Amino acid sequence: MIRLTYRIETPGSVEAMANKIASDQSTGTFVALPGETEELKARVAARVSGIRELPAADQASFPAEAGGATRFNRADVDIDFPLDAVGTDLSALMTIAIGGVFSIKGMTGIRIVDMTLPQEFAATHPGPQFGISGSFALTGVKGRPIIGTIVKPALGLLPHETAAMVSELIEAGVDFIKDDEKLMSPAYSPLGERVKAIMPVILDHEQKTGKKVMYAFGISHADPDEMMRNHDLVLKAGGNCAVVNINSIGLGGMSFLRKRSGLVLHAHRNGWDILTRHAGLGFEFSVWQQFWRLLGVDQFQINGIRVKYWEPDQSFVRSYKAVTTPLYSEKDVALPVIGSGQWGGQAPDTIAATGGSTDLLYLCGGGIVSHPGGPGAGVKAVKQAWEAAAAGIALEDYAKDHVELRQSIEKFSDGKAG
Amino acid sequence: MIRLTYRIETPGSVEAMANKIASDQSTGTFVALPGETEELKARVAARVSGIRELPAADQASFPAEAGGATRFNRADVDIDFPLDAVGTDLSALMTIAIGGVFSIKGMTGIRIVDMTLPQEFAATHPGPQFGISGSFALTGVKGRPIIGTIVKPALGLLPHETAAMVSELIEAGVDFIKDDEKLMSPAYSPLGERVKAIMPVILDHEQKTGKKVMYAFGISHADPDEMMRNHDLVLKAGGNCAVVNINSIGLGGMSFLRKRSGLVLHAHRNGWDILTRHAGLGFEFSVWQQFWRLLGVDQFQINGIRVKYWEPDQSFVRSYKAVTTPLYSEKDVALPVIGSGQWGGQAPDTIAATGGSTDLLYLCGGGIVSHPGGPGAGVKAVKQAWEAAAAGIALEDYAKDHVELRQSIEKFSDGKAG
Repeated sequence: MIRLTYRIETPGSVEAMANKIASDQSTGTFVALPGETEELKARVAARVSGIRELPAADQASFPAEAGGATRFNRADVDIDFPLDAVGTDLSALMTIAIGGVFSIKGMTGIRIVDMTLPQEFAATHPGPQFGISGSFALTGVKGRPIIGTIVKPALGLLPHETAAMVSELIEAGVDFIKDDEKLMSPAYSPLGERVKAIMPVILDHEQKTGKKVMYAFGISHADPDEMMRNHDLVLKAGGNCAVVNINSIGLGGMSFLRKRSGLVLHAHRNGWDILTRHAGLGFEFSVWQQFWRLLGVDQFQINGIRVKYWEPDQSFVRSYKAVTTPLYSEKDVALPVIGSGQWGGQAPDTIAATGGSTDLLYLCGGGIVSHPGGPGAGVKAVKQAWEAAAAGIALEDYAKDHVELRQSIEKFSDGKAG
Repeated sequence: MIRLTYRIETPGSVEAMANKIASDQSTGTFVALPGETEELKARVAARVSGIRELPAADQASFPAEAGGATRFNRADVDIDFPLDAVGTDLSALMTIAIGGVFSIKGMTGIRIVDMTLPQEFAATHPGPQFGISGSFALTGVKGRPIIGTIVKPALGLLPHETAAMVSELIEAGVDFIKDDEKLMSPAYSPLGERVKAIMPVILDHEQKTGKKVMYAFGISHADPDEMMRNHDLVLKAGGNCAVVNINSIGLGGMSFLRKRSGLVLHAHRNGWDILTRHAGLGFEFSVWQQFWRLLGVDQFQINGIRVKYWEPDQSFVRSYKAVTTPLYSEKDVALPVIGSGQWGGQAPDTIAATGGSTDLLYLCGGGIVSHPGGPGAGVKAVKQAWEAAAAGIALEDYAKDHVELRQSIEKFSDGKAG
């Protein structure tokens, strides 16, 4: 049985609306039909199994559909779908239990807030190939977060310019570097040229020091064949990671890639905000992320504390919980990637959110490269912040004898870490 | 140059927000960086090229982000991206010009309302393989809409039950039949079994009458390899059409399928409502449909007049215009598929919306099968409605000597055509 929980908002009866969803999304018509037998209903009919009332709202989430009402009833409604009616294909699940629901009339708001899938989904989907343990093993990091950074400016650098910056960042001591999610294979920096310029820098440093920095190349392409060619370019040159814009390639692109992938797949959720930013509409991240983890995301970007984007801290905390909670086993957990405006100053609040765990990738852009002492000092400052946070020491105290941390506090505590 | 038009809503300055979008979505950081040279900006920087003010709103589209304001400035803002910064890959376009924009703080609403892509996109994407002319040629229909229906109940029929219903619908005289979009390959009706049960009925009727009814089988699958296996099953059995849930398979799935397809691809946009139902947020259909037409949708479901869903008629009219307006040439136009609660009664208003064109597929579910005289009478009634509409005769008048139309008016004019 597949269970979906919908947060329904309607000027009418929540129960009637719940029954309508259950009916529309299974046998699916508005007129009683000759073929709609009891036997058929037993096979496929969805069933409302729980209704938990919520306080009514005084504004409609879809304002154009308020129809003059001033009170909008709200409830969380569980609807159970027989597994056989849907099967384990994620496109069928998305179509039957999620997509179609948003077309139904009579609601002034609808949000998918929870989804529980039976064990059969575990057996039919690959899940992460590397996940948390693979990411730590490949970077050689132990006992602290993997410290990462993003090549900036996001767009416009030529391959040799990117490679020069990568060299500087590697010298600074980062564990992980990524292309900005907006960089894939534009004319001024085709992926093949970028790989050719960057990988020797990574491999050279590995040979000298034994430390292989993980570089995530932007391989996304709407055409899965092209994406695989991009993947192969990276793998053959000795790379071990790729940025994948999961929303832009879709379930099909992700599924195709994972089946053939030899790279750690670092998911950027660019576009996800469309689905979730309005609290009365769309999806909770906890639902949406299940699709991508089943398909095999290894590392999942989920913003962080005090980000530069719209997302409030409590939403990030929920995302962190979602992505680190096993669906079926520890192996299906993706590495949480915490980024956006980070510089180390958020380490204490972040570790409070993770319950003490440092099994995460901590991405700092401007917070590293714009440090007054240069990127090397930037990396040191971030590491110091995490040492302090893990030991429960206030950053201001730890900064007294850690100059890089002190400088970063002076520069970034106004929130301008980029 | 790629031009996007964003409808921005903000309690602050629209112009400042427009500049922020242009900056974030190209060079992309909040701190001035050493590498951000004038030369680089010339290569990739997006530029605000037009701002057209709209009346201010008194409510925030994202209510949680109103911040106590009571006036929200609104404008349509054109932003131009250099083609070289993005390239012609649709996943890059989606990531850079659309997806990322929704994460930006400081807006209380954002909707993508227009997109103009340069000629280079025509050369690098296949577009429809069959489109309007192919759909009419394969069904043998001339001078009127292709009349189609959907097998209902949507889910739950066994393959032989579906085949029996298909046989009845073929005898009734429909040109086109489809699986409900929710039906793909569940355990009780695996696609292979369904094809095996249905195709002999189609081919037998073709041999007897010369008329080959187009049957659209639900082939969607999150895994493109599985979807191609489904495609091949249909093609090898002599089928010529498939329902594809474009939102559920994503750009990657659609791109992969189209490159290898021998079938007419009938797109269902299930899930699209999430992106568009709130008028202050998301996408206009006119923007979103361009992606799928470039990738090669042949037939595009766009609702209709007085549908059972939330979509108002004027939104359908805009969708019709969008899908029938060439992007680069007539060849990239998809066949508009008009459905949901249709029974012929909407033909006059529909033909008013199409400007007299009957180049469309008109889908009736309950409107055909629940006709009091049976499905055969249902098809006749729909054809009569279109004859009347095309000749500019009121349905009530035409019904005086067309009994099937009269019966359908009696039964369905309360809007219950399913």
